[in-house]
Formats: sequence, structure tokens, C-alpha cells
Amino acid sequence: MGLSALCPGTFDPVTNGHIDIIQRASRCFERVVVAALENPAKTPLFSTDERVAMLKEAVADVENVEVASFSGLLVDYASVRQIRIIVKGIRAATDFDFELQMAQMNHRMTGIETFFVPTSPQWSYLSSSLIKEVIRFGGDVSGLVPDFVRDRLEEKLSPGRE
Amino acid sequence: MGLSALCPGTFDPVTNGHIDIIQRASRCFERVVVAALENPAKTPLFSTDERVAMLKEAVADVENVEVASFSGLLVDYASVRQIRIIVKGIRAATDFDFELQMAQMNHRMTGIETFFVPTSPQWSYLSSSLIKEVIRFGGDVSGLVPDFVRDRLEEKLSPGRE
Amino acid sequence: MGLSALCPGTFDPVTNGHIDIIQRASRCFERVVVAALENPAKTPLFSTDERVAMLKEAVADVENVEVASFSGLLVDYASVRQIRIIVKGIRAATDFDFELQMAQMNHRMTGIETFFVPTSPQWSYLSSSLIKEVIRFGGDVSGLVPDFVRDRLEEKLSPGRE
Amino acid sequence: MGLSALCPGTFDPVTNGHIDIIQRASRCFERVVVAALENPAKTPLFSTDERVAMLKEAVADVENVEVASFSGLLVDYASVRQIRIIVKGIRAATDFDFELQMAQMNHRMTGIETFFVPTSPQWSYLSSSLIKEVIRFGGDVSGLVPDFVRDRLEEKLSPGRE
Amino acid sequence: MGLSALCPGTFDPVTNGHIDIIQRASRCFERVVVAALENPAKTPLFSTDERVAMLKEAVADVENVEVASFSGLLVDYASVRQIRIIVKGIRAATDFDFELQMAQMNHRMTGIETFFVPTSPQWSYLSSSLIKEVIRFGGDVSGLVPDFVRDRLEEKLSPGRE
Amino acid sequence: MGLSALCPGTFDPVTNGHIDIIQRASRCFERVVVAALENPAKTPLFSTDERVAMLKEAVADVENVEVASFSGLLVDYASVRQIRIIVKGIRAATDFDFELQMAQMNHRMTGIETFFVPTSPQWSYLSSSLIKEVIRFGGDVSGLVPDFVRDRLEEKLSPGRE
Repeated sequence: MGLSALCPGTFDPVTNGHIDIIQRASRCFERVVVAALENPAKTPLFSTDERVAMLKEAVADVENVEVASFSGLLVDYASVRQIRIIVKGIRAATDFDFELQMAQMNHRMTGIETFFVPTSPQWSYLSSSLIKEVIRFGGDVSGLVPDFVRDRLEEKLSPGRE
Repeated sequence: MGLSALCPGTFDPVTNGHIDIIQRASRCFERVVVAALENPAKTPLFSTDERVAMLKEAVADVENVEVASFSGLLVDYASVRQIRIIVKGIRAATDFDFELQMAQMNHRMTGIETFFVPTSPQWSYLSSSLIKEVIRFGGDVSGLVPDFVRDRLEEKLSPGRE
Repeated sequence: MGLSALCPGTFDPVTNGHIDIIQRASRCFERVVVAALENPAKTPLFSTDERVAMLKEAVADVENVEVASFSGLLVDYASVRQIRIIVKGIRAATDFDFELQMAQMNHRMTGIETFFVPTSPQWSYLSSSLIKEVIRFGGDVSGLVPDFVRDRLEEKLSPGRE
Repeated sequence: MGLSALCPGTFDPVTNGHIDIIQRASRCFERVVVAALENPAKTPLFSTDERVAMLKEAVADVENVEVASFSGLLVDYASVRQIRIIVKGIRAATDFDFELQMAQMNHRMTGIETFFVPTSPQWSYLSSSLIKEVIRFGGDVSGLVPDFVRDRLEEKLSPGRE
Repeated sequence: MGLSALCPGTFDPVTNGHIDIIQRASRCFERVVVAALENPAKTPLFSTDERVAMLKEAVADVENVEVASFSGLLVDYASVRQIRIIVKGIRAATDFDFELQMAQMNHRMTGIETFFVPTSPQWSYLSSSLIKEVIRFGGDVSGLVPDFVRDRLEEKLSPGRE
Repeated sequence: MGLSALCPGTFDPVTNGHIDIIQRASRCFERVVVAALENPAKTPLFSTDERVAMLKEAVADVENVEVASFSGLLVDYASVRQIRIIVKGIRAATDFDFELQMAQMNHRMTGIETFFVPTSPQWSYLSSSLIKEVIRFGGDVSGLVPDFVRDRLEEKLSPGRE
């Protein structure tokens, strides 16, 4: 049996940067579980169901990818799924120090490894929050997220609709 | 006709660090538009009108500077004003990664360029939020902001007044 | 008379990383005052009294350490206590730029010096907020904070108790 | 008369990243002087004449760009050319701290300003030294430098030719 | 057939930090190839044969690890070995920007992926060059490298022996 | 008996930034030993004797400062001098990651502590190597180093003298 990897995130919403990391992970591992965090303490723009649905649509053509959601500790979810590798995209050095703390804490708790994959240059400036801010002020994010994600963002956020 | 530059920010309130960047930009460009962001999603300490008024007073003696406010996307405001250069002060490496994302997103949307100007060393530790925190606890910020800004901060924030 | 140092922080709650810095400072200075910030604008998990009590228990066996709380500006508290050295643990480069701004502002206000002490490698990924997040989702933080701190965290935060 | 900018560098050799910055500067300023540093203390792969010739060929179709070389202090060369703006591409936060020192030193000496322009994402990983290392080990750099630059690199550096 | 990973480096000499990364990789992948770079342009302290011999001794008890050397481009060696994942330890944010450039260049050349694994906290300050400097001045590196590596370093570098 | 601190460095040559750190340390500690490293593997511009002589002249008016030189490991020299605190100026985040490694290695070897003191903003862009580069190309460093240091630099390095 081959190796599985876990791609955790909030994915509020999924961007082309996320999709790139998921696709690249899917070429390296036998199975990739994309897991959207359900955090009761935060209020994302999209519900967990919406975020999962968009992820599913975005990676529908990648055979060995499963989309799921989880709540609680990431390491506990990984244990339940019997996965011992986390794959995270990383854009810049300042991302790194924070992610390093999380990765070392997670490793200490269960021995799980975190593999950081450098974001492709063309998506290096993308983040879900920047995407939402652009939409909120009436900007166009075509080409940065899948078209169906852009449409759902515009339904929720375009000026005049809020 | 010469070249114009846009200096955007929240300016809540303007500090000597901002003024230094604006003055230096005014010596490089024919016209500098200082634009205070009006963001309905945030509640700055000073209203847009107050922030614009303080900016105007702070740069009153610089001939080729105009103070304005804008809402919506910065790149849209720049298009309306027919300006294709943004000038931003930058203090330290950790500022840089975030600003880089914004600059690359803005460039992608309209081709607008962002020029980062290193803050003068003597103002390198200044930020509007640090200034407000010092005032809030009764400290003195003379010499870090214009005197009239210090006075308005003390009116709003000094302990015993809130 | 020997030299005193001030170790300020929120300590919400104290971690083994804090204790390590305090112990090392106590070997260098004649007296170390650990000062928990009481900030009316923030709502820590533990009250000032609780944070002070945990700190006292955590460093009970270090003779030359005093635990106190303060409100207002750190530099004012330092003046009252006649201390002119602040000691801060620092974990990573990205911590540094922000702490540098604070240190330079503090130095400008009263001439007080800030000495940054590198966190011991084994605690480099620890922070009070990460500890609280782990507990909140049912994780185990034994060995990262004193046992009695873990117990109080679990009383407050364990899932099912909130 | 419009505004001029100086784009200094070693350009050993020019890459598509450099060309992108020069082209973008040429759209902002009336005239751009690209200046290759002749540093007697260093031995670049290409002579100053070769580096200048490659630069000229690379930007031949950009009207308002002049290619030159200089020795001595950059600020002195800028004074002679009566230019008071330096434009530098910047790729990542770790570039920034070093460039910041140079920019602040230069500003102190003559008041010259340095504008940092973020490298386009697709060239963010390019550097002349990385290009040379790839060629030296027999790799292909097509698409990262102009074809004629690639050919000259291969003449000089390909394994079996050295 | 399972997944293979390549751990490249100079390993001049191997440290406990390298061994930790190799062991952790060996638990994730079916096979790990540790590859010591033979770079004619550099003069490491230990010859390629010595570096390979020390690596072999250091990971002798890890079944699925193979030690080899390579010259030329890493991506070419990876192709020959039919490996499409590089695993690299990463210690701090400032390591990251440089490694990111290499990883993105390598990905562009052959599509190979680089997975960055955070160094374990207890080895976060280790580097081969720091180890050599300590030995050179008569310091003790026991516990930071395997004992047999320490002995060979002392033979080569201890003061009085050079 | 009060506390002593060690300020190590190459001081090739001493700058106003170094002097600022030494003066500030002298106000905090009972005695400050400034120690110039004699490293046989490096060839500084000034001999050890010259560097020590310039340091002595630069801090002649600070009573509790002693200038010395050392070779070998810093921690060994500190042990001989019975000093257990190192004080180092730090300018920017990218300095920090490297210095952190040295500090943690030194702490591991003998338990010595390193206190990092933020450079004053006005000297934040200064380094001995930048100073030498400016002089080498005929620039003026008055106000950045003591006048007598500037004169000795010009004797050694001004163009036409080398």
C-alpha cells in the first residue's frame, strides 16, 4: 500500500494556489486527503459544506484526491485517517516562522511530519483573504480562482449585494 | 506633463514617518496624491474627514501634494486619477512579504507599479498603532508626530479621557 | 547594589519557555521582576490575579525573582521600580522586527535598554496562544507547561467544559 | 523635462528578471539609464564590455533606455548623470535587509532615493549566479535569459568547454 | 512500488541534524537516497569518499537508506535515479528564501518537487560549517555529531594538528 | 561585585554603531570587556593591534570599558575572563537567524548567555564592510566613524593610495 498525505486548510475559498499544491501532492502520493477545518471559534465566509463542495468541484478531475472536513486537532484527525504526512504550501519566508511552530508542535504530539511545498511562482501572491478583499471592493479575480468560485464569491461579496 | 505618484494609507493618524515619505516622494514626482483609505469594514480612531484634515495640515507647506480620500480598490482609484505609480514606505523585511503580495496583486489587476521607499532610519520604529498605544497609556509622542496630531490624540485617547 | 532586570509579558498562561528565560535571567541579574501586563483593552483567558498566581508557583524555587503585575506603559512601571533593563525571550527572526520597534520606542522614551535572549531550542515553537489552541481541541500539553498550569488550562478550556 | 531613473547592477549576465524591471521602469520614467558596475575587486564571468553589449542587445527595442557602465560609487555616477532615483528589483524579504542598508547609506551620502520594485512572480527565483550554476552543470536556461545570452553562457561555461 | 526520496547535501561532515532528517524521511518513504554533492568548484574539508563513508556509517542501522554521491545537476541525478521528490531540512526563515529559489528552479527544469522538513528544535542551530569552526578553535562537538565524526574532525582540524 | 559583559567583534574598523552599543552596555554593567577577534583564517584590513588601538581611542572616555583581543573560541575567552554574558548589537531580522545559531551553540558549550541589543535607528544601516566599500570608492564616511578612524581608513584605502 502506498503513502497518503493530508492537505489541511480553511479553504475559504479554495484558490488556484491551493489547487496547484493539491495537484502536485496527488502526483507524489498514492492518496491525498484535502481536509477543510471546521473551527467553531471562527466565522468563515463560506460554511464548511460550501467550502467542501467547492473543493470537490475544483479537484474533481484528480483521481486520487478525497475532500473531507474535520474539527478538533489536526493531528487527531490525521491519526483517525492513519496518515502521517501533512503537506502545506508555503509562499514566503514570513509564512515560515509561524508554520514552523505549528509543525514542530504537531510533530511533538504524534510524530506526524509536515512537508512544506513551495508555492508555484505564479500563485505566490495569492491568499484567500486577499481574494475576498478584491471581490469585496468590486475587483475581478478571474484566473486566480476557478470561475465557479469567482461566481460564488461575487454572489456573496460584490458591492451592492452585501 | 510630469509623473504622478499615489501614497495610499490609513493614516490613523499621520506620523512623522509618513510625512518623510510624502516629502521625499514630492521631490521625485511632479505631483503626489496622498490618499486616505475609507474602509467601511474597519473602525479607525479618527474619521476619514479627521484623517484627511490632519494630513492636509501636515503637508500644507509641500506645494505639489494633494490630499484626498478613497474607498473601494486602490487600483480603481489610481485609474480614475490616471496615476500608475504607488509609493509606499517600508520599514523592515517582515513588512515586505505582505506588501509584496499586495503589490503583485495590484500589478496583475491593472499593471500599476508599486515603488517601495525605505523609511528613514530615525522613523523606522514608528507606526500609527504604536503611537496610539503609547498615548493610550499616558506616554508622550512629541517629536514622533506633528504637535497638532499629538494634541488630537491626547484629546481622544489619554487615560482619564476615555 | 547589583543589577535588576524586568521580564514583562502577558503570561496567559506561563509556559516552560517563559520559565526558562526567567531562570536564565535570574542567574545573570541580582534581581528579576517578572511583570504581568494588565491591559484593560484585552481579555486574556486568565485574570491578572490568576496569571500572577501561576507565575509565582512556577518560579517559587528561584530566590531572586519577584512576580508582580502592572498596567499602563512598561517604561513607566520600570521607572517606578527603578529598573533600566528589560529582558525578552525571542524565538525567531519574524518575532524580531516587531519587538525591535517596541524596544526602540521604549529606548527613545526613557533610555531603557531591551536585551533579547534567544529562546532555548527545545521551547522555540512554544507560545501561550498555541498552548491554548491545543488544549481547546483536546490535546495534551504536558511537558510544555508546568503540570499545575496544564490542569488549570484543562479546567477552563477542555472540550465539553466550555 | 521628465524624470530619469538609474538601474544599477552587475548583470553578469542580464536575465529576463532584469529585463522585466528595466522595461517596467522605462514605462514609468522618461529615461532609464542601465548601469553595469565595473568593480576591479571582483572578477565577473563576462567583461564589462561583454555585459554592456548583452544589455544593449536585450533592451534594444526599448526606446528610452540607455546602457552604460560605471566604476566607483554609484551615488557619484548618479550625480554626474544628474539622476536622483535608483530603481532596484527585489525578490524576497531576505534580499531586503541588505538592500535597505545600501539604500540608506546612499540616501545619507547624497539624498538619492532608492525605489524597490517587486520582481514579477514568474522571475522571482532567478539570479545571475543561479543561471551560471545551472549552465555550468549542463542544464538548460532557455526562457530564463534571452537566447543570445544563453548561447554566450554555453560557450563560456558548458561542461567540456571549460 | 513505493515512493523514493532524495536527500542531497554537501555533508562536510554529516551532523546529527542531517541524520535526524534522513531518519524521519526513511520512515515516510520506501527508499531514501542520500546524495553527497561532488562539486569540482569547491574544496570541502573531507573528500567525497570520506563524506560518503561517514554518511554510510552514520545511517548504517536504517534499512531503507542508500548513500551515494553525484556531480552535475541535482535534477539530472534525480532523473537517472528515477526519483521525483527532494527532501531538505530547513532551520529558519532566512534559510527559506534561498532554498525557495533553488526549489523553484529545479521544479521548472524537470517538475521535481522539493519537500522542506523543519529541523527538529534541538538541532536547529547546527550546521556543518559551525561544527568545523568550533573544532578548529579547540571546542568540543560531542553530542552534535556522531562520535566517529567528531574524532575525524579532530584529526583534521584541532589546533596544533593543522 | 557587579556584573561584567563581553562585547566581541572583528571591529575592522570600529564604527559609531559599535561605539553606541559599547556605551550603552557600559551604563548597564559594572565592567565591559570589548574583545577584538584575532582569526588566523581571515585577513582583516587592520591588524589586531591597529583594531585594538582604534577601539581604545574610541572608548577612551568610558571609564568601565576595557579593550582586549582574543583568539580561539569566544566561550573559552569568556571563561578565562570569568564573564558569562555576551552583548551583541543587532540591526535587522536577517542578522538574527545567524546570530541565533551562534548564541545557541555558545550557550550549549558553556551556558554563557547572549543578550542582543537593538542597534540605535540612526546606525542601523552601518557595517564595517559597507564603510570600507564607501572609502574604497572615494566616498566620505564622516559622522559614521570617529574622525581618526576615517583618517586611517583613507590612508589605507582611498583610490590612488592602494
